[in-house]
Amino acid sequence: MTPELLLEQLQHIVGAEHARNDGDLSAWEQDWRQLAQGRALAVVSPANTEQVAAVVQVCAAAKKAGLGVSIVPQGGNTGLVLGSTPDDSGLQVVLSLRRMSSVRAIDRHNLSITVDAGCILQNVQEAAAAQGLLFPLSLAAEGSCVIGGNLAANAGGTQVVRYGNTRELCLGLEVVTADGQIWHGLSGLRKNNTGYDLRHLMIGSEGTLGIITAATMKLYPQPAAVCCAWLAVDSLESAVGLLALAQQHLHSGLTGFETMESDALRLVEKHMPHMRMPIDVAAGQAFVLLEYSDDESEDRARARLEGLLEAAFEAELLTDGAVAQSLEQAQRMWDIREHITLAQAAEGLHLKHDISVPTSSIPAFVQRAKEALQQALPGARVINFGHLGDGNLHFNVQAPEGADPRQFVDTCQRQAEAAIYDCVAAFDGSFSAEHGVGRLKRHDLARYKDPVALGMMRAIKTALDPLNLLNPHALLPDAAA
Amino acid sequence: MTPELLLEQLQHIVGAEHARNDGDLSAWEQDWRQLAQGRALAVVSPANTEQVAAVVQVCAAAKKAGLGVSIVPQGGNTGLVLGSTPDDSGLQVVLSLRRMSSVRAIDRHNLSITVDAGCILQNVQEAAAAQGLLFPLSLAAEGSCVIGGNLAANAGGTQVVRYGNTRELCLGLEVVTADGQIWHGLSGLRKNNTGYDLRHLMIGSEGTLGIITAATMKLYPQPAAVCCAWLAVDSLESAVGLLALAQQHLHSGLTGFETMESDALRLVEKHMPHMRMPIDVAAGQAFVLLEYSDDESEDRARARLEGLLEAAFEAELLTDGAVAQSLEQAQRMWDIREHITLAQAAEGLHLKHDISVPTSSIPAFVQRAKEALQQALPGARVINFGHLGDGNLHFNVQAPEGADPRQFVDTCQRQAEAAIYDCVAAFDGSFSAEHGVGRLKRHDLARYKDPVALGMMRAIKTALDPLNLLNPHALLPDAAA
Repeated sequence: MTPELLLEQLQHIVGAEHARNDGDLSAWEQDWRQLAQGRALAVVSPANTEQVAAVVQVCAAAKKAGLGVSIVPQGGNTGLVLGSTPDDSGLQVVLSLRRMSSVRAIDRHNLSITVDAGCILQNVQEAAAAQGLLFPLSLAAEGSCVIGGNLAANAGGTQVVRYGNTRELCLGLEVVTADGQIWHGLSGLRKNNTGYDLRHLMIGSEGTLGIITAATMKLYPQPAAVCCAWLAVDSLESAVGLLALAQQHLHSGLTGFETMESDALRLVEKHMPHMRMPIDVAAGQAFVLLEYSDDESEDRARARLEGLLEAAFEAELLTDGAVAQSLEQAQRMWDIREHITLAQAAEGLHLKHDISVPTSSIPAFVQRAKEALQQALPGARVINFGHLGDGNLHFNVQAPEGADPRQFVDTCQRQAEAAIYDCVAAFDGSFSAEHGVGRLKRHDLARYKDPVALGMMRAIKTALDPLNLLNPHALLPDAAA
Repeated sequence: MTPELLLEQLQHIVGAEHARNDGDLSAWEQDWRQLAQGRALAVVSPANTEQVAAVVQVCAAAKKAGLGVSIVPQGGNTGLVLGSTPDDSGLQVVLSLRRMSSVRAIDRHNLSITVDAGCILQNVQEAAAAQGLLFPLSLAAEGSCVIGGNLAANAGGTQVVRYGNTRELCLGLEVVTADGQIWHGLSGLRKNNTGYDLRHLMIGSEGTLGIITAATMKLYPQPAAVCCAWLAVDSLESAVGLLALAQQHLHSGLTGFETMESDALRLVEKHMPHMRMPIDVAAGQAFVLLEYSDDESEDRARARLEGLLEAAFEAELLTDGAVAQSLEQAQRMWDIREHITLAQAAEGLHLKHDISVPTSSIPAFVQRAKEALQQALPGARVINFGHLGDGNLHFNVQAPEGADPRQFVDTCQRQAEAAIYDCVAAFDGSFSAEHGVGRLKRHDLARYKDPVALGMMRAIKTALDPLNLLNPHALLPDAAA
């Protein structure tokens, strides 16, 4: 068996134009952050589930026949951890799901939607909205990421505090297994206690246990009104206290609770001077972008939110606050939040960390992690923001003022990670809250994962993919590591 | 290795008084419905997780040494499918978690509680309530079932429409594996994307993959007010339409949506004539018990509920309706719902089915299943009620009028199941929505489960429990089946 022969077989299954290994394939061979450029045996784009199964079957047969081939499933290629791009061996088949992009069905009474894995997230949202319903998964890449990738990576986003991660939104899956069988697990059921929950095992497994080809997802009624506030607090302790108060007052109406330390906003002011802050950055140590969704009316939304702010001022949790008076003002608040990433890029290369700890531990964790980082890398600047409502922080690090960013990133990455992730571990946290592991964080998994859990993971991988055909370089560390 | 020698080792670990094989052990050897009476090698009650691990280790060693021993984990022994009682071989060790019953910690700001597996469900609820918080899992057996059993069986209950099943309420687990290691997976994290979700794999696995020894569960703010209504509808179509309208009006405030067909209520009237129906049973073909929880006030709860009823009358979905004017009246509504099971028992032995289909399919399913049943067993009486909000029906069957109930149950069970479960399968439903599989429904799993899924389940079982030590007669059908 040779790569050329396998390519022929692949072309036979999907058509020559959909199994390519020449021309510019960088859209599939390179991750979008351009951290790594791979080289694929072929980029294969099946038209349907049966073709996915056939592709897996011929690859499995080729592997059994001695070719060192493997498969890297790919969705929108918007991941952050090198989980869906090939290495440079020329022996990995990129299996792109993008051609399978249909909405298969909406069941309004069952509040569910069934979509192909390659359906773009925004299209799922819009299909739901067209029926007056809400698909609440929302994240920066929603215009190009696809639901299969969201599921494989268990994406988070901005509404997790109310609706949960992608995992919590999934009712059923269709999956092609590592030996090329089709598991028909699509389901609109809310309750089904007939054996091991393979759905949750596949979700978050980053294409290493099976290839998700379709999914049934939950829908919700649209809220009647959404209202936002921008709030200044004097410490992260106050932010956590405010979160508890907001949950007590607003219950499931609390649909967003983002926090940014003032340094993050100063960076936005520096690089995007046209962006106007709702409140002077000097007014607080940290800021909260709070979103409330009401099931009744605009008026009630505003009244409920103002009631919360009154109580928060009374409890001395706030130093200042502004309620958006229009959708446009609310959008501007979200824009500032989303621009932190761009401001960081403008400031120069930097280190990203996507961590979580129990929300109650956030103030103590941040203090300890900053101290540890200063000790390891004096002058390094923490840009800390994220989804406080879920205990999830993007605890990013810029080079010291005046230092060369590239040199800093190249030489200090491991030290920064060790300083921060050791603190995360000390607070029973996670070194990857919503981005996954991919190829990029495998060594962290080896270091921080409970060894008994790691042992079970390996056993499951071997049981479901004995040829190690599916995404073998992602997620699980090499056994020797 | 002999049973006697193993008993000695077990007594050495937990103390002689906590590893027994004499006296009356029926509380552990018999299920509470008294369907089967087993005989255990020993009933072992460890005091802590380390003892659980040690028990598993000596049992594994005994099995390796040739003794045909296995372990049946047991919580409150309130299950309905023979999932936690031993067979009559005298070679199964019942591992009771009941001595491990503490609340380990509550984290109010993180909205989480960590409890031992043997903690009684009601005690979890009360520990949360003492902090002004809600643990929403609620079911008939809550005074005696334990959280470890709820997790192993993924229990449902009456609030699933809002808060999900036990699975959705769990943040982390501590588990003893089949080789006697301890997986420290307790976690208060809302987000953690570092590998396969072993938590969800263990939940619902009925003690066949590991022994849950502790769990961290989600808590919620208490609602400000809870309000109930008893509603008459002219068909199940109307009930499903009402559900959609209620979800649209009440959003996450809809915390209960139970449906009962009139025959079920007539049985309650017949055997409990003292129970007063809120609405004459002749007023509808079916009745809905709707529960609404408001985050603001009693007054608003009532106004919102009345607003829904107005809209429902206008849409001609209701034939009559009554709103509970007090907690006592609301309790009486729930009492009627809970008394259906007792009325069925008073009527005589009968067949229980715990099925689910997509809510949108319920009317068509019920019609088809009743027809199929009449064809198979003319005169058999369907007593249909359940959690319509989750698509979950207890589609029970009584003997024909005048027929001998025991004879009916003994001779007709398989026929009734085939008629009903074939219909369930035709509507993409589940033959066990919330009760699990256990020993009782293994043959149904063999018949109705997707064969690819069943193959993956077997592979996982072999990978995580290669000795087949943990609950070997539950859940998975014998490979030959």
